[in-house]
Amino acid sequence: MSGKVPPIDNLINQLTKLPGIGKKTAQRLSYFILDMEEKKVENLANAIIVAKKDTKFCKVCCNFSSDDLCHICKDDKRDRSTICVMEEPRDVVAMENTQHYKGLYHVLHGVISPTQEKSPDDLKIRELIDRLRDDEVKEIIIATNPTVEGETTALYLSKLIIPLGIKVSRIAYGIPVGGDLEFYDNLTISTALENRFEMK
Amino acid sequence: MSGKVPPIDNLINQLTKLPGIGKKTAQRLSYFILDMEEKKVENLANAIIVAKKDTKFCKVCCNFSSDDLCHICKDDKRDRSTICVMEEPRDVVAMENTQHYKGLYHVLHGVISPTQEKSPDDLKIRELIDRLRDDEVKEIIIATNPTVEGETTALYLSKLIIPLGIKVSRIAYGIPVGGDLEFYDNLTISTALENRFEMK
Repeated sequence: MSGKVPPIDNLINQLTKLPGIGKKTAQRLSYFILDMEEKKVENLANAIIVAKKDTKFCKVCCNFSSDDLCHICKDDKRDRSTICVMEEPRDVVAMENTQHYKGLYHVLHGVISPTQEKSPDDLKIRELIDRLRDDEVKEIIIATNPTVEGETTALYLSKLIIPLGIKVSRIAYGIPVGGDLEFYDNLTISTALENRFEMK
Repeated sequence: MSGKVPPIDNLINQLTKLPGIGKKTAQRLSYFILDMEEKKVENLANAIIVAKKDTKFCKVCCNFSSDDLCHICKDDKRDRSTICVMEEPRDVVAMENTQHYKGLYHVLHGVISPTQEKSPDDLKIRELIDRLRDDEVKEIIIATNPTVEGETTALYLSKLIIPLGIKVSRIAYGIPVGGDLEFYDNLTISTALENRFEMK
């Protein structure tokens, strides 16, 4: 650790609780923080507290937001006939970065997972169904990850939503653009083969 | 960024100021922090503030310490005839981890570097020389890094200390244990060759 300086050991210990931060990295970050100006250290600590305190959930799509409604739900230019269902807020960021999707979102905050004791009631599914009462919604794109849990959740949602007369679609599986066949597993490759499309 | 949620964007921004934390990592950490319990978020922020506020410098060796004297300088079992001179507190941690060195330390807090505008007066050199008045000190081991700045500093210190009749030594250069010749630069390899020792 730091060589038996309790406040440094405590900081190292706290930092190792973050994902991808091992002991060595935590130690390097801690010594860097100790070298920072006091004002900047306070800014960092404050940013952590404020991010947690001032971030709420959008009342409509359940994404993180600093207001009651997030900037996407507020945006008149978005296509209100399509809702893309995501596992986590960070997935919305990834989708928005593509600048390709112009519809709305709905964040489930997880997936159905017996191992993690997450049942449909723990997800923002009720909130999604509530939104479908609005006749404007024509299509739900389920963009949960292609994992067992993501698939289970997609299937569960489709069984709830299709009977309401709303189109449900699922994002495509395949080889990532720029990917190399040799690095992907058999299931990805065979799914990519199965979902092949005709070149014209 | 986070998709235009100012407190999240601010946290991401603050985290990218840390070493080795790029935008992607900062984003992942931020969303992780937002998912943590409020109490744990406070613990993390507090650990940062407290580490900065409660850590002072040992009055003797200038290493980080929570008291006036660090646990090494206080320790009666350490060999007081040898002082190992280090660039930074983290180097002390690395040396202590070997459990090989039983003497005392002195932390310079940097090296002489014209490009970073660090002159000898900016380092804890005066404090080191003060310690040499004590007749107990027989050897100074200079363990600054084998960089141009580290060498310059080692040379500067040796010229100050040798006239005081105290032995000055420098840590050995060579191929790291477990290293592979093909991965090291010419200078390292030729130094290792030059410093070869006879096997008996």
